[in-house]
Amino acid sequence: MKTLQVSNEIREAIIEQKPIVALESTIISHGLPYPDNKEVALRIHDIVREEGAVPATIAIINGQLKVGIDEEDIERLATEEGIVKTSLRDLPGVLTKRRTGSTTVATTSYAASQAGIRFFATGGIGGVHREFPNSMDVSNDLITLANSNICVVSAGIKSILDVPNTLEMFETLGVPVYGYETTRYPGFYTTDSGINVESITKEEAASLMRTKDHLTLDQSVHIAVPVPEEAAIDPDWMQSIILEALEEAKKQQITGKDITPFLLKTIHEKTNGQSVKANIALIKNNAKIAAQIASSYYNTN
Amino acid sequence: MKTLQVSNEIREAIIEQKPIVALESTIISHGLPYPDNKEVALRIHDIVREEGAVPATIAIINGQLKVGIDEEDIERLATEEGIVKTSLRDLPGVLTKRRTGSTTVATTSYAASQAGIRFFATGGIGGVHREFPNSMDVSNDLITLANSNICVVSAGIKSILDVPNTLEMFETLGVPVYGYETTRYPGFYTTDSGINVESITKEEAASLMRTKDHLTLDQSVHIAVPVPEEAAIDPDWMQSIILEALEEAKKQQITGKDITPFLLKTIHEKTNGQSVKANIALIKNNAKIAAQIASSYYNTN
Amino acid sequence: MKTLQVSNEIREAIIEQKPIVALESTIISHGLPYPDNKEVALRIHDIVREEGAVPATIAIINGQLKVGIDEEDIERLATEEGIVKTSLRDLPGVLTKRRTGSTTVATTSYAASQAGIRFFATGGIGGVHREFPNSMDVSNDLITLANSNICVVSAGIKSILDVPNTLEMFETLGVPVYGYETTRYPGFYTTDSGINVESITKEEAASLMRTKDHLTLDQSVHIAVPVPEEAAIDPDWMQSIILEALEEAKKQQITGKDITPFLLKTIHEKTNGQSVKANIALIKNNAKIAAQIASSYYNTN
Ligand SMILES: [Mn+2]
Ligand SMILES: [Mn+2]
Ligand SMILES: [Mn+2]
Repeated sequence: MKTLQVSNEIREAIIEQKPIVALESTIISHGLPYPDNKEVALRIHDIVREEGAVPATIAIINGQLKVGIDEEDIERLATEEGIVKTSLRDLPGVLTKRRTGSTTVATTSYAASQAGIRFFATGGIGGVHREFPNSMDVSNDLITLANSNICVVSAGIKSILDVPNTLEMFETLGVPVYGYETTRYPGFYTTDSGINVESITKEEAASLMRTKDHLTLDQSVHIAVPVPEEAAIDPDWMQSIILEALEEAKKQQITGKDITPFLLKTIHEKTNGQSVKANIALIKNNAKIAAQIASSYYNTN
Repeated sequence: MKTLQVSNEIREAIIEQKPIVALESTIISHGLPYPDNKEVALRIHDIVREEGAVPATIAIINGQLKVGIDEEDIERLATEEGIVKTSLRDLPGVLTKRRTGSTTVATTSYAASQAGIRFFATGGIGGVHREFPNSMDVSNDLITLANSNICVVSAGIKSILDVPNTLEMFETLGVPVYGYETTRYPGFYTTDSGINVESITKEEAASLMRTKDHLTLDQSVHIAVPVPEEAAIDPDWMQSIILEALEEAKKQQITGKDITPFLLKTIHEKTNGQSVKANIALIKNNAKIAAQIASSYYNTN
Repeated sequence: MKTLQVSNEIREAIIEQKPIVALESTIISHGLPYPDNKEVALRIHDIVREEGAVPATIAIINGQLKVGIDEEDIERLATEEGIVKTSLRDLPGVLTKRRTGSTTVATTSYAASQAGIRFFATGGIGGVHREFPNSMDVSNDLITLANSNICVVSAGIKSILDVPNTLEMFETLGVPVYGYETTRYPGFYTTDSGINVESITKEEAASLMRTKDHLTLDQSVHIAVPVPEEAAIDPDWMQSIILEALEEAKKQQITGKDITPFLLKTIHEKTNGQSVKANIALIKNNAKIAAQIASSYYNTN
């Protein structure tokens, strides 16, 4: 049984030491409505290629963990009912039942690391939920990033979470966190979370990953890129909307895996779609930056 | 120095790829009174054999970590004073001082994994204590299950603990959790903790463990089997007794390692022995189910 | 690129299986004022040698992670501005930028483990901050000690932290903790934190580390040595000073990496220098005990 199926293009890119950017698929199945989801997924592929890197979208298709899915697979993830949002703990079950699933940040990091990919672009990463410790809901993304050796480029931690405490937990776990050309940690929908962070350029990020190649540190590196100005949302307005959405989730007793999709949908409605526009803008931007860092890494290796 | 001593029968079973079920020994030294503890330990061996599997009770005898102890060892653990309840952090010390100790879920998982055993039956597993975060008392069982590759069959998390938050922490750590032929997570003494869980059959569990053989995921799999109906205790009655016992522990200032034995003894008294009957019924049942899953795993490997 | 540079003396000592004691360098750059810091660093070298062991102070000099620095390096760390206090997450960045940094308990444990060193003496180790869970500030020392195989000799957990909860977290992570010839866990500036702990002698500690050589447990062992009586501070007085210092840090809104240096400086002032005297006395004593344990380990190996 072969659980990891790497596409021919990705396999060749690995052998030839070409830059590759891993991409997650939960944004396709659960993050955006059709046909936005498909269009964005394909557009991101183009963006990565325009920067001289190879896109490697990761998903589970009929019980095969595929690194590098094609347009047909993307169409399925974008339209089919019952695609399983697959966190790392769900992976053995989804593979065993030969189901089709999209991969979270954790599962994408795992699969990309297994395949030898060093860079990964995503929208936002999971963390400590605001209810902690009443509910000890903490994303497996944190633990997986502390145990995989990849560079994760995102627009920060999902802003529905407890951002300061998630950053504390990254520190506890030894995960390096940098702001991309900024000393203010980005706030996902907003350019500034209000928290200081060390700034890094793309060349420095590439250089850092080369240094890590010579160390035996398990931790991934997290680089947070501010959402592009033109799509950024006003921080105060956004904060009030998030608090309203959290209130509503509590009233409707939404829990567990259902919370994040519920909150995103509610925020979408309350911002008249501005949150989705920001999400699309930032994921495209992150893919571009990740591809540039990957290119810098391989060009000077 | 050879720290791990695997019995001849277990060694042959491993080589011949026969099903094996690991069993912990804290239930013998600290969980049940004499002669119940010895009788149950031997009865469980028979149950495992009746299902075509080999029982591997694990304990530390005179500073030797033994995988597969015999009746004489069981008699010692069941009767001797000063048997050390050995969690994983205690293991180096107990071995160094050539002491005799019983193994917790964590230490049994570690030793079984080291020996190449894939299935383990126990009563209940540790987790987050209800005082968290006032006291950050969280069992090492959680961390060890996140770092060993075994299938642990239990009747759920010990119900004196914070069950919802322990399940959250399993999710954070990436440990897959399933209900055995039930969509309601079992409540140890009761069949239903009130929390939803994905259901699994024994064939699916065997299949899942085969899938894991092809992945490089560290985490163990936890399968929770409801206590047999005829021994189950009424959930509301049980909950009130646990709260009384916790109250008494606080009053008497019982802390640390002494809490769990104190609570179990108090619950025993307050239920007029029903809790011990449930405990015996569920551990026998778990051993049977674990043996059946192990047999399914090896028959179709 | 060679990231770890082991001095000739240390390399020979490793090959010849001579006792070695790793030492951290944050005490030089951030822990003590000049010229105390340099004098103490050199005095500790002598103390380790007097016990028949080789001192291995660890630091980052111009982007080289050096195991075994010389007097010239110590002078730089003791006097230069801008020495980076380098926790494990900072290590790749400090190496990449070819900076000069001192190593924390975590980074020293990592580098020493990489070099094959088994013993490490330091002042106090990090842990859970008192604000938890309002701020989830928990030192990476805890996680790194759960993932490196070394014997860390300290005077306990830094007393500005939440000592009981840090000890709980060590238990959760499976890190063995012992009191050196005492059944009361030391309180850093004071001989007794009020918490019970298992006692260990130097021969037992050496023996324990030999047992660990035959196990595949990741965790380090923590041995807490009481501050020498003549330098110990009264526990009640110390506790009130710590609470005042914490209050002041809150008032002045000191956060993150700045908290520990601020608190130490404030405590220094409020104790009229007694805290620094205690700190110097305990680090010298810890170095001596660590060297004795290391000697015992190699002599009877
Ligand atoms: Mn969650
Ligand atoms: Mn505990
Ligand atoms: Mn901190």
